[in-house]
Amino acid sequence: MYSYSDLLRITTEIFSKMGCSNEDAAIISDVLLRAELRKISSHGILRVKNYYQLWKEGRIDSSPEIKIVHEAPSTAVVDAGNGFGMIGAKYSMELAIEKAKKTGTGWVATRNSNHYGIAGYYAMMALEHDMIGISVTNANPTVAPTFSVEKMLGTNPMAFAAPAGREDDFVADFATTPIARGKVALAEKKGEKLSDGMLQDEKGKTTGDPSVLRKGGAIRPLGGDAVHGSHKGYCMSSIVDILSGVISGANFGPFVPPAVAYLPRKDRQVGKGTGHFFGAVRIDGFMTADEFKERMDEWIRTFRNSETTEENDHVIIPGEPERLAEKEIYKKGIELVPAVEDDLRKVADELGVKIT
Amino acid sequence: MYSYSDLLRITTEIFSKMGCSNEDAAIISDVLLRAELRKISSHGILRVKNYYQLWKEGRIDSSPEIKIVHEAPSTAVVDAGNGFGMIGAKYSMELAIEKAKKTGTGWVATRNSNHYGIAGYYAMMALEHDMIGISVTNANPTVAPTFSVEKMLGTNPMAFAAPAGREDDFVADFATTPIARGKVALAEKKGEKLSDGMLQDEKGKTTGDPSVLRKGGAIRPLGGDAVHGSHKGYCMSSIVDILSGVISGANFGPFVPPAVAYLPRKDRQVGKGTGHFFGAVRIDGFMTADEFKERMDEWIRTFRNSETTEENDHVIIPGEPERLAEKEIYKKGIELVPAVEDDLRKVADELGVKIT
Repeated sequence: MYSYSDLLRITTEIFSKMGCSNEDAAIISDVLLRAELRKISSHGILRVKNYYQLWKEGRIDSSPEIKIVHEAPSTAVVDAGNGFGMIGAKYSMELAIEKAKKTGTGWVATRNSNHYGIAGYYAMMALEHDMIGISVTNANPTVAPTFSVEKMLGTNPMAFAAPAGREDDFVADFATTPIARGKVALAEKKGEKLSDGMLQDEKGKTTGDPSVLRKGGAIRPLGGDAVHGSHKGYCMSSIVDILSGVISGANFGPFVPPAVAYLPRKDRQVGKGTGHFFGAVRIDGFMTADEFKERMDEWIRTFRNSETTEENDHVIIPGEPERLAEKEIYKKGIELVPAVEDDLRKVADELGVKIT
Repeated sequence: MYSYSDLLRITTEIFSKMGCSNEDAAIISDVLLRAELRKISSHGILRVKNYYQLWKEGRIDSSPEIKIVHEAPSTAVVDAGNGFGMIGAKYSMELAIEKAKKTGTGWVATRNSNHYGIAGYYAMMALEHDMIGISVTNANPTVAPTFSVEKMLGTNPMAFAAPAGREDDFVADFATTPIARGKVALAEKKGEKLSDGMLQDEKGKTTGDPSVLRKGGAIRPLGGDAVHGSHKGYCMSSIVDILSGVISGANFGPFVPPAVAYLPRKDRQVGKGTGHFFGAVRIDGFMTADEFKERMDEWIRTFRNSETTEENDHVIIPGEPERLAEKEIYKKGIELVPAVEDDLRKVADELGVKIT
C-alpha cells in the first residue's frame, strides 16, 4: 500500500531520471496516479514499465520539442515532439481552453504523440473554466470493424466532462468497445471465459476465450455484432480515429504505433506517432454558466432518481464510481498488484530511484 | 412507385397547404425524401401524417419565427420558433458553417424545435464547404439507461460527415441504440421476435418481444447490458442529450416532447421543445483540404480492403450503403409501403392536394 504522495515522488523521480524536466515528470505522474485513484489501473502505474522500455529503446523522447504547426482562431494542430503522451496532451488541452476563452470554443488535434493515459484527465481540465471538455485518442489496433477479421482500430476512447452546480460534475470516459484491452488480459491470466459478443477468433466467430487476441483474434466494436449494432460502435471508433489520426497528421487505423516495447515498430507510417483530439466549449457561448449548472443538476437528479431494476439501488451518473473511488483510495492509499509493484521496483532500481 | 420529383411536388404542396412558405415546404420535403432515397424510410414519408396531425392540433407552428438568442464568435443558440424541425435545423447548420468560415469552427445549439428527420442531412451540408459536419438531436424517451426500468432517453442519433477526395465521403449517421424504434414496430407488425439484448420488459429483463415498448418496457442503449458495455451507449446518448437539450435551453431526457400526435403533451417542461446541436469544422483550420482528402482516401481504402469474414465480401465504409441506395432509388423510383401511401393520400385529400 502506497500513499498518493509517496507514489507521486517515486514516479516523478523515475521520469526525471529518464531525462524529463521536473515539471514534465510531475505531469506524467499525476495523470498515471489519477488513473490509480479512479480505479482505472490499466492506465496507471502498470504503464511505467512500458513507458520506460519505450524510452530505453529510443522510441519516446523525454525532452520533446512541442510546437503549434497550424492554427485558426478556434483550431490548432500541435506536434508533440514524440514525447510522453501526457506532455503534448496537456499542452494541447490548455491551448484549446485558451482558444475557447477568445472565440467560445477551442479544438486542437495533436500528432507525433504517444499513449496519453486516461482520456478523462484532459476533458476534466475544462471544468474549472466553466467549460465542457472533450478528449479522444486513437490507439494501437486491437479491434476489428464489423465484418472484418483484421485489427484495424484501437479501443479509441472518448471523454466528455460537463460542469454541474450542487451535484457532482458529469464525466463520461469510455472505450468504444464492449470491453477494455486490460480486462481481456486479466481474464486470460485468471483462466476465465468472457461472455460472447466481445471477442472474435481469427475467422471472425464470437468466442469467450481471452487468449484469441494473441492468436489472430480481435476485440469487437461496441454493440458486439451487426445484429446488435456493432456497426455503430465501428462508426464511433472511426470518428475518434479520423479526428485523432487523419486531421492531425498522425497515424491512423492499423498504422498507430504500439504503446508497449514488446511490439515492434510499424513498417509503414502514414503520419507521425499517435494522435489525439481535444475540445473546450465555453458554456457562456450558449447560456450563463449558472443557468447551465442548474440545468445539469436537474438532469443528474432526474436520471439518478429514475426507477431501477430490482438488483440495483440507483442509476449511475457517468463519473460517479470514479469520483467515489478517488476520494476513498486517496484516503486509504493505493494498492498495487504484486506484478505491477515488482515492475515498478525493477524500473526504479535500474534508474537508481529509492522506493522506500 | 413514385418518382422523386412527383413526391417532392406532392409533399411540398402538402406543407404549403399547412401554411409553410414555399421555401420551407421544399426544405421539409427534401429532408423527408432524402431519407426515402437513403433507405431510412422510418424518417421519410411515414412522418408526413405525424407532422400533419401535430400541426392540426396546434403543436407545431408552420410559419415559425426563428432567431439567434445568444452567440459568441464560434457559437450560438437558435430558437426555432416551434416550427417543423427541418427549418430551424437547416438554419442552424448554415449558421454553424458561416461561423466556421470566420473562426475555423461553428457550433450551434437549437431549442424550441421538433423532429428534424435524418441527422445526416445536416452533417452532409458541411461537405461542399470542405468542412466536417456534425449533427445530433435528442428525441422523445424510449430508452432506459443501464440499471433503469424507465424510458429516460431518446434513440438520440449522431451524424458525422467528413469529405474524401477520389473516394466517396465518410458519412456516419446512427442511433445510440442497438435497434431503431421503427424496426421494433416493424417486427411487432410482422409478429417477429428480436434477438436478446436490444429490448427489456417492465422489470428490466431482456426480451425479444417487440410489443414490450407498449407495456412498460424500453429499448436498451448500444451495448445491450452492463456486461457488454451498455453504460457506454448510455454515456453516448447522454452526451447527445446534454448538447441538444441542456445547453440549448430545450427539454432533455424524459421531458422531450413526442414526435407523434397520439402521445399527449408532457405535463412538465424543463425548456422549450426538442433540441439539436450542430457543428461545422473547417478542414483548413488543421491542414489543407487537399491533404486531408488524400488522407481520408487512404483511410477508406485501408479499411475497405481489410480482410473480411467468409460471409462478407468487403468491409463497409460508413455512408456507403445509403449512397448506393440513393443512386438506385432515385433512378428506379420510391416505393411506399401501402399503409404509408394510404396515409399520404388521406393527408393530401384533407388538405386538397391532388396526388395524380
